[in-house]
Amino acid sequence: MPMGTSSSVESLYAEVQQFYAHHMHLLDAGDGEGWALTFTEDGSFAPPSLPEPVVGRAALAAGVAEAAASLAKAGEVHRHLLSMVAVRPGEDGELAVRSYAQIIATPRGGSPRLHLMCVCDDVLVRVDGELKVRARRVTRDDRQP
Amino acid sequence: MPMGTSSSVESLYAEVQQFYAHHMHLLDAGDGEGWALTFTEDGSFAPPSLPEPVVGRAALAAGVAEAAASLAKAGEVHRHLLSMVAVRPGEDGELAVRSYAQIIATPRGGSPRLHLMCVCDDVLVRVDGELKVRARRVTRDDRQP
Amino acid sequence: MPMGTSSSVESLYAEVQQFYAHHMHLLDAGDGEGWALTFTEDGSFAPPSLPEPVVGRAALAAGVAEAAASLAKAGEVHRHLLSMVAVRPGEDGELAVRSYAQIIATPRGGSPRLHLMCVCDDVLVRVDGELKVRARRVTRDDRQP
Repeated sequence: MPMGTSSSVESLYAEVQQFYAHHMHLLDAGDGEGWALTFTEDGSFAPPSLPEPVVGRAALAAGVAEAAASLAKAGEVHRHLLSMVAVRPGEDGELAVRSYAQIIATPRGGSPRLHLMCVCDDVLVRVDGELKVRARRVTRDDRQP
Repeated sequence: MPMGTSSSVESLYAEVQQFYAHHMHLLDAGDGEGWALTFTEDGSFAPPSLPEPVVGRAALAAGVAEAAASLAKAGEVHRHLLSMVAVRPGEDGELAVRSYAQIIATPRGGSPRLHLMCVCDDVLVRVDGELKVRARRVTRDDRQP
Repeated sequence: MPMGTSSSVESLYAEVQQFYAHHMHLLDAGDGEGWALTFTEDGSFAPPSLPEPVVGRAALAAGVAEAAASLAKAGEVHRHLLSMVAVRPGEDGELAVRSYAQIIATPRGGSPRLHLMCVCDDVLVRVDGELKVRARRVTRDDRQP
């Protein structure tokens, strides 16, 4: 599912939304390698559950593989749904993007539940014409100060 | 609520999102005839609950009418929310679109619940300038293999 | 987070989505003053919980401050997620926008829940190049007739 570059008939906002759709489909399919490629080589992800950010594609891919194995064992499917995406262009073409993230969990044969409600703050950059996540910070609503 | 055609100031991605918004508003309002017109004449819909796809506008409209009557009897409102929409243009202007679908059910006087979490794979085509669903396949997360 | 005006590379649909993202981030952060500025000066909001619409920025801002104080006391975070946004341009550049609104509530240390499922009907207008809400009417699915 190639993302391509922003063309004259596609808006930047649409490109960002399409990027996230592709990005989350890869994550939820457990494709750690593919998902890691949507980060920069030194991309970082600071999830709420870890004391230190995960840095670099190898570590990012390993985290997905681990999560996918754990979900398969538990017989659950997780979906990551971003919404209310606000794109703020910065210097040098960087994009600061804030969105809401619903994580939906569905057990095999059971009812889906809203597992977590989060806020996602990304820095997106363009590498060879394609958007990549350089830095992500996620906060959970249940752990608000 | 006319959708119009893609103009030079609207991106294809936005047009697809607007198409789905209109499409789901018709479905959730129980307007089977209007909803069926957003499919091609030979449009097909393979829902997870039926052994065979529903084919053609008359059958599609009848399915909505039946569901609407059943919901009215049960005193429930259903909403279909698509998100994480990924559009992949194919040959001849066809679009392969994958999205996540939350189905929200709210009983009269009660609390809303996430009824089903699904993945929706559509083939959209353009007929007389307007997008139409030619084929839809929906899978439920609770029935993942 | 400035919204800017619709440029030649941004579609109107994307602009509306970005407007709502910014608008809801302000609301959910409890920034009543900032949120009120995304309405016209005489903007009105007819929520399902009140017999009369709230009119004007001072009243709109006060409503948010009151709600934020109440949520802080209860130890809950609320998020407003709009989806299935259908934009219908009218005369004089007015936009009639219908969307679905999920309100997600998360208690500190607890699980998120889908608090309310609503339909949001807005009239958006452009003031000095920026989109503003002139009128909003929200209906709750649990109070459908």
